[in-house]
Amino acid sequence: MPFDILRSPFAFPHHLIGPTNYDSVLQEYEAWWKQEGQAISDAVDRTGTPWVRMFDSAGKRVDEILYPPDYWRMLQQGYRAGVLWRAFQDKSLRPSFLLIYLTSFYDSGLSCPYTVSLSTALPLSKYGDAALKERFLPELLREDDRNWQGATWMTEIKGGSDLGANVETVAVPDGNTWRLTGDKYFSSNAGAELAVVAARPKGAPAGVRGLALFLLPRQKHNGELNYTIRRLKDKIATRSVPTGEVELRDSEAYLLGEPDEGIYLILEVLNVSRIANSVGSVALAQRAIADALDFAECRIAFGRPVIEHPLLHRQFDERINDLRCAFALAWEAGKLLNEVWEERRPYSQRYHLFRLMAHLAKYWTAEFAVQTAKWCMEVHGGLGVLEEFRVERWLREAMILAIWEGTAHRQLLDALEVIERKQAHHALFEYVGRPPRLREAVDAIDAHLQLSAEQRERDWEPLGASLAQLTAEALAGNLPSVA
Amino acid sequence: MPFDILRSPFAFPHHLIGPTNYDSVLQEYEAWWKQEGQAISDAVDRTGTPWVRMFDSAGKRVDEILYPPDYWRMLQQGYRAGVLWRAFQDKSLRPSFLLIYLTSFYDSGLSCPYTVSLSTALPLSKYGDAALKERFLPELLREDDRNWQGATWMTEIKGGSDLGANVETVAVPDGNTWRLTGDKYFSSNAGAELAVVAARPKGAPAGVRGLALFLLPRQKHNGELNYTIRRLKDKIATRSVPTGEVELRDSEAYLLGEPDEGIYLILEVLNVSRIANSVGSVALAQRAIADALDFAECRIAFGRPVIEHPLLHRQFDERINDLRCAFALAWEAGKLLNEVWEERRPYSQRYHLFRLMAHLAKYWTAEFAVQTAKWCMEVHGGLGVLEEFRVERWLREAMILAIWEGTAHRQLLDALEVIERKQAHHALFEYVGRPPRLREAVDAIDAHLQLSAEQRERDWEPLGASLAQLTAEALAGNLPSVA
Amino acid sequence: MPFDILRSPFAFPHHLIGPTNYDSVLQEYEAWWKQEGQAISDAVDRTGTPWVRMFDSAGKRVDEILYPPDYWRMLQQGYRAGVLWRAFQDKSLRPSFLLIYLTSFYDSGLSCPYTVSLSTALPLSKYGDAALKERFLPELLREDDRNWQGATWMTEIKGGSDLGANVETVAVPDGNTWRLTGDKYFSSNAGAELAVVAARPKGAPAGVRGLALFLLPRQKHNGELNYTIRRLKDKIATRSVPTGEVELRDSEAYLLGEPDEGIYLILEVLNVSRIANSVGSVALAQRAIADALDFAECRIAFGRPVIEHPLLHRQFDERINDLRCAFALAWEAGKLLNEVWEERRPYSQRYHLFRLMAHLAKYWTAEFAVQTAKWCMEVHGGLGVLEEFRVERWLREAMILAIWEGTAHRQLLDALEVIERKQAHHALFEYVGRPPRLREAVDAIDAHLQLSAEQRERDWEPLGASLAQLTAEALAGNLPSVA
Amino acid sequence: MPFDILRSPFAFPHHLIGPTNYDSVLQEYEAWWKQEGQAISDAVDRTGTPWVRMFDSAGKRVDEILYPPDYWRMLQQGYRAGVLWRAFQDKSLRPSFLLIYLTSFYDSGLSCPYTVSLSTALPLSKYGDAALKERFLPELLREDDRNWQGATWMTEIKGGSDLGANVETVAVPDGNTWRLTGDKYFSSNAGAELAVVAARPKGAPAGVRGLALFLLPRQKHNGELNYTIRRLKDKIATRSVPTGEVELRDSEAYLLGEPDEGIYLILEVLNVSRIANSVGSVALAQRAIADALDFAECRIAFGRPVIEHPLLHRQFDERINDLRCAFALAWEAGKLLNEVWEERRPYSQRYHLFRLMAHLAKYWTAEFAVQTAKWCMEVHGGLGVLEEFRVERWLREAMILAIWEGTAHRQLLDALEVIERKQAHHALFEYVGRPPRLREAVDAIDAHLQLSAEQRERDWEPLGASLAQLTAEALAGNLPSVA
Repeated sequence: MPFDILRSPFAFPHHLIGPTNYDSVLQEYEAWWKQEGQAISDAVDRTGTPWVRMFDSAGKRVDEILYPPDYWRMLQQGYRAGVLWRAFQDKSLRPSFLLIYLTSFYDSGLSCPYTVSLSTALPLSKYGDAALKERFLPELLREDDRNWQGATWMTEIKGGSDLGANVETVAVPDGNTWRLTGDKYFSSNAGAELAVVAARPKGAPAGVRGLALFLLPRQKHNGELNYTIRRLKDKIATRSVPTGEVELRDSEAYLLGEPDEGIYLILEVLNVSRIANSVGSVALAQRAIADALDFAECRIAFGRPVIEHPLLHRQFDERINDLRCAFALAWEAGKLLNEVWEERRPYSQRYHLFRLMAHLAKYWTAEFAVQTAKWCMEVHGGLGVLEEFRVERWLREAMILAIWEGTAHRQLLDALEVIERKQAHHALFEYVGRPPRLREAVDAIDAHLQLSAEQRERDWEPLGASLAQLTAEALAGNLPSVA
Repeated sequence: MPFDILRSPFAFPHHLIGPTNYDSVLQEYEAWWKQEGQAISDAVDRTGTPWVRMFDSAGKRVDEILYPPDYWRMLQQGYRAGVLWRAFQDKSLRPSFLLIYLTSFYDSGLSCPYTVSLSTALPLSKYGDAALKERFLPELLREDDRNWQGATWMTEIKGGSDLGANVETVAVPDGNTWRLTGDKYFSSNAGAELAVVAARPKGAPAGVRGLALFLLPRQKHNGELNYTIRRLKDKIATRSVPTGEVELRDSEAYLLGEPDEGIYLILEVLNVSRIANSVGSVALAQRAIADALDFAECRIAFGRPVIEHPLLHRQFDERINDLRCAFALAWEAGKLLNEVWEERRPYSQRYHLFRLMAHLAKYWTAEFAVQTAKWCMEVHGGLGVLEEFRVERWLREAMILAIWEGTAHRQLLDALEVIERKQAHHALFEYVGRPPRLREAVDAIDAHLQLSAEQRERDWEPLGASLAQLTAEALAGNLPSVA
Repeated sequence: MPFDILRSPFAFPHHLIGPTNYDSVLQEYEAWWKQEGQAISDAVDRTGTPWVRMFDSAGKRVDEILYPPDYWRMLQQGYRAGVLWRAFQDKSLRPSFLLIYLTSFYDSGLSCPYTVSLSTALPLSKYGDAALKERFLPELLREDDRNWQGATWMTEIKGGSDLGANVETVAVPDGNTWRLTGDKYFSSNAGAELAVVAARPKGAPAGVRGLALFLLPRQKHNGELNYTIRRLKDKIATRSVPTGEVELRDSEAYLLGEPDEGIYLILEVLNVSRIANSVGSVALAQRAIADALDFAECRIAFGRPVIEHPLLHRQFDERINDLRCAFALAWEAGKLLNEVWEERRPYSQRYHLFRLMAHLAKYWTAEFAVQTAKWCMEVHGGLGVLEEFRVERWLREAMILAIWEGTAHRQLLDALEVIERKQAHHALFEYVGRPPRLREAVDAIDAHLQLSAEQRERDWEPLGASLAQLTAEALAGNLPSVA
Repeated sequence: MPFDILRSPFAFPHHLIGPTNYDSVLQEYEAWWKQEGQAISDAVDRTGTPWVRMFDSAGKRVDEILYPPDYWRMLQQGYRAGVLWRAFQDKSLRPSFLLIYLTSFYDSGLSCPYTVSLSTALPLSKYGDAALKERFLPELLREDDRNWQGATWMTEIKGGSDLGANVETVAVPDGNTWRLTGDKYFSSNAGAELAVVAARPKGAPAGVRGLALFLLPRQKHNGELNYTIRRLKDKIATRSVPTGEVELRDSEAYLLGEPDEGIYLILEVLNVSRIANSVGSVALAQRAIADALDFAECRIAFGRPVIEHPLLHRQFDERINDLRCAFALAWEAGKLLNEVWEERRPYSQRYHLFRLMAHLAKYWTAEFAVQTAKWCMEVHGGLGVLEEFRVERWLREAMILAIWEGTAHRQLLDALEVIERKQAHHALFEYVGRPPRLREAVDAIDAHLQLSAEQRERDWEPLGASLAQLTAEALAGNLPSVA
């Protein structure tokens, strides 16, 4: 049956993009998930927020995150498959994104540790000095199941959108290191051995220009804990990543890049996580469709499987086509990132095209994941709202994908900004092959740019949404059909 | 500020429909919720599925549902305010719907016990014989905090849409009572003192025509438990109603109406719950908007409250207008129900108009509630996905509203059926005052009805959605504006 | 039946000590527990550790402890009955102990907030200067349901026995206040409006001589939080008191007494809590016996209620007699405290007698509570280990009574110390009326005191245990019998 | 340090009983526990009662027990090591008991599935006909990680002690099988592929003489579920065994032995589980001592590790000696079982000696485990009552060991019965080598037997306790010392 590839997070991308060098790795990884991983992930989700042991019985602060042993096995599986080291070995983010796609079909939260580890290794390799790289990079890239993990900690309690105003963590130089003091509120992968952290050097100007990016290990030189975890956050999903509130108190850290270019490094970090989020959103949507399919094929009503009911069948056809479009958008954004991620300031026009594509992809794919997960619950009827049948999980996961790394609102406005400043919509138009329907949209945007700033922002949403959809459809035109 | 009425589930309907006889009751009830009820509801939601004590320590089966004492206080508050007895005293469902609206703003799950108690009392009063009414009705309508509760148990494990095929509970006559044996899978308000239950009299034909409706008390004549609760269901929300799997084993029951008209009685029961669901959905959407508003007014980004950001402000304006439309649709459907609920077969054309409106309202308001709750989470950004801030609850609640009493898919097809059979869209067109935009929709539907049955069903969704939206907008035209 | 008084925590003490001025208060309080309180307490226990909301949605640290509303109603019931204000109004701890006895029969954890509030009010009234007393004491003693609560925070992570070595909280003078910085590890009643806190003034000597006692309000003068709660502790029981880890960071505090006499004030605080613990232990043991009795009367095996099985019946008789002894010991220790609590250094010989009695009572009654709770589980057989039947709770509660305020080991050694230093065993012998069997014990102790320090400690346990038991039996000789 | 063997459940028995054929198996198994098993067991305990999926999404009853995958790995480890198949291969229960000892040091609840599987295989091999054995025994004894599990389901809701009165499950013959209908209340290892079940053949006499023992597979011949699990029980511990309430409804079963000798077969099943319980109790006590030791060595108070405080040190010495005695008693009882388990009625005098020893061992070792676990918590002070430090778990586990398979009360009375009927105390006296102190006890018992039946039971406890203790001490005299 043509629908069968929907049940496999290897087969569906494979159908669309053809063979890659990683097919056997991916097939093996998928086989592991079917046989063992799925049940582990279910158990981790069901157990809820993991537990932190703050002190050992001798009274020493230890901040151990107490996932069950299975969790660590599950986590290690992706590192071993190469979600991190392959990017450096092959000098390409492509294997990482393929593995993140596959992971997210089963556990979209687990893609977060992989992504933030990648987002730690990349700026370290790009902006770290030789000593720093030599000391830390090999630890992240170990292939022996003992690799360190990375983490990216930017946000503080007052909010994540306006980092310029809200980062209150202060960095003070101390010999050739720095000392950081502050509280990070959404610290993904709390417990990681290495984190990149946004902070403001003492005396730096207010606003985003005063931010710098630092590398911060879990342990100080003397072996003491370098940060403490105030608590793990009770999130509705993505329970396979421990998100914590982290307290920095004179914590040892190393500057990455120049002190006054931190905001650019931060945005580069976000580039990676937005693409990973887009890729993961598509995979999650595929999963929701696959589960809806399984159910609709075996549930009988009015004498036939509900998949054969005409209205529902049409909904499946439409969802699957939209899935293809969403994949095209996310994948193309990933390809662009692969081209530009090594750029430094001043950035090329290609970089700005990438940025626009990334905002559209983050926005559009997450929205699609949410709506598809919701629909999947509705297909299941009453079973959809029971914790017993797992299906409600996909909506919880999708809502987080739609919010972290910037909500729809944020992506739309950032896309508008790169259009305003860099005319990136024209580059996009060229890039996707000048399809006529997109021409209309580009013209409408050009007209829109004549409005006052207030109006531009206020009335942007329908235009932005349309641009995303048309771009996705145009890109999907180059991919094989699914039926 | 004009937005202020959004924060009150009394003030917003009051603004739209004007004063009622129940204003002081409603204001007092709202005051209780603010002062006490909200915190109780939070605690009940957070605690999750309540606990059943199956046996006492002497080994006797008791099936006590162990909510904390606060729950019973919260529950009783609505009964005392008159959600049940006022409908009978005033011979109008209006006070019930007003109280359900208000309740649902704070705890949409709690509206379920009220609704199913109403849905038990109504068929009892309409179809019960004198002895049955005399024995049971006064228990439901007590005003002394000792009223019985009702419950409506139709669905079995194989699915809720196709009752004709899936109800396997058998009823066997036993003197002037019946004995029911079977398992009910989604039994709302498990533990109620009285339930209406769908079952098939032994020897009755297959399909919906063979169904009958029975009244089933919690205790047998001899004081023994008349049904057992296999377990309570782990739902993602509506934790203020215990939904269980109920086992009937030779359970004593009383026939309501004639044995071969059960399906009509069942549909009449659903009429009430669909309207209650619509009313509750609107209230939940109001709540999500109110919470988003509170947050957007106090959250600062880029130097001003986020409510003042143009794109977000526009979203608020649109949501509020949509809320008005959704209210109009739900409320009008309720008014129609109030006109027709005492009808018996053969039903009038007014009844069919009501049915169409009810399906549109159930479908449209629940969808609006889901999308609004999702948007409210996005407005909250990262805080939106934390269990700490309650806002994620509204999406969980809304998803259940969208699914129980029939999903969107079901409502759309049932609306199509009443259009096909009774041309109810024409009646609707007349009823809402023949607005031109609806004329186009009605014509399109007439054309659609020429298609094959398969095509009619397959391509119906956009037409049905449009009919709902246009009807809501037309009805809202009669209501005061909110800004 | 003579056993009936065992089912009432009013009737049993009343039988032993006769009428008091508080009988009607106690009876009303007991009636409330039966009707409402028991179910609330069950729900609080079952829900587990309460939840702290650390931040409000505006990002402000708030540290709200989110018990359900019922909890606050339950808590307030005891304050309203006078567990705190009656002690000051009647200048006697007697009403407090009677109310704590009654409370502990239903919820021994709830006695903790009452006890620590008392332990805050007493040193404040005794050692606070006039301004401090005027400002804070009336808040604690309000009778209008808005009274403040107190708390006693001594222990830090390295352990509670050796305060001299382990209190690392530092106090720095700041005008007429002090600033405290440190972490308290077992902070009972975290969230209280006022706490007494052990700290070491900067520059004070090491060891117990360098400790001082401070009064610390929840809010600073400027309204900010004066301490934060790192987390609440997951205890196996006493869930009706929020025990937290508290962080003091330049927290405003007021010195009580002289800076170099803190250790004496701390010990005076412990005097109160040890007696409350003893009283509560006896009440808990009574409860376990009462529940065992209920079960044994209705459980049938081998043709008769198990209470009628000879071996079990004998066990009941012995338990009840031991309960009488335990009550006598705890009650007498309370009477002595009532005599001496206003003493200041240098303390009288009566004070030292009290100390010995307090150590014996804390030790002996808690051990009795543990063994009785364990036995009660065994009486219930398999039901005893199910969470469904509440009986396992009493063992969890008892284990905490046996450990907090000092374990058996600690009480035994402190008793030995007051014997070594003050020959308090001789005073005890006189006090209980010179019974012959105690004469032997006293002689044995005198001989024991000739041993080396090492041997004295090593071999003390059997002597100390015997002293406690013989004292309890001697004191019980003055009480009415129970059968 | 001499204490070191206390930290190893291999080393301690090895020290006492010397090398066995299983040393390398045991060492490997212990290594697995240290490296992986302990953390899995912690996670299983912390997660609480596992979850049952009753229905799959197609609505079919499946009753899957949803432990995390780690659980199954942990469980399989013991089967692979040979806890079941070695007993049959080596025709000795010795390897089973050694493996159960080792398992119980880490997770005493996990020993239950092993024990009940053994208790299923033994009567099957002894009383099953050839066809039954051929069909089922190899499934239990597979060595390829796909072995079936067994289960023993006797008890019903009215109580476990008086099976004669309380077993209401009825068995009706149906060709060469039987059909069982009834509810089992404490069904250990619910979900097992095979269970032995007590039931009363239709028409059999009341009381124990009317009981028969049946073998009941999880699946019927036609592949359907042969029993359903009403729910799993919320136990305070032993969460590594799913204990459920099992519903039998015309369930297929096979008679073991003769219909009128069921009670003897049931008692033979209990023989095995009582010895396993004794062995596990000693292991648990060893574990509690080992944990106390770890803590006491690293906790500092008053300037030195608390292990060096004289009173505590003495307590350690005493505990360790008592541990040796408890081991001796349990082990000897196991040796006797190994001699007699193949006996059939009429039983030899050796069998009656075994029964007395088994009752004394079950009673005494469980009591020791409880008291030691309690003491271990006290050694830990405040940390002992926190869920964070695992130590509170041992008391929960121990309480179940003290209750299931018959409480102290039951063991004492059953010991008395075998003394009264078979003069088994004399055989015991001979068996342990006629030590003088036991002579006194035997004489006292002889005198006691002259009392009335009522008095014999009422006053038996101190004599029985003394007999157990003296027997243990006498047996320990043959074992090497521990210091």
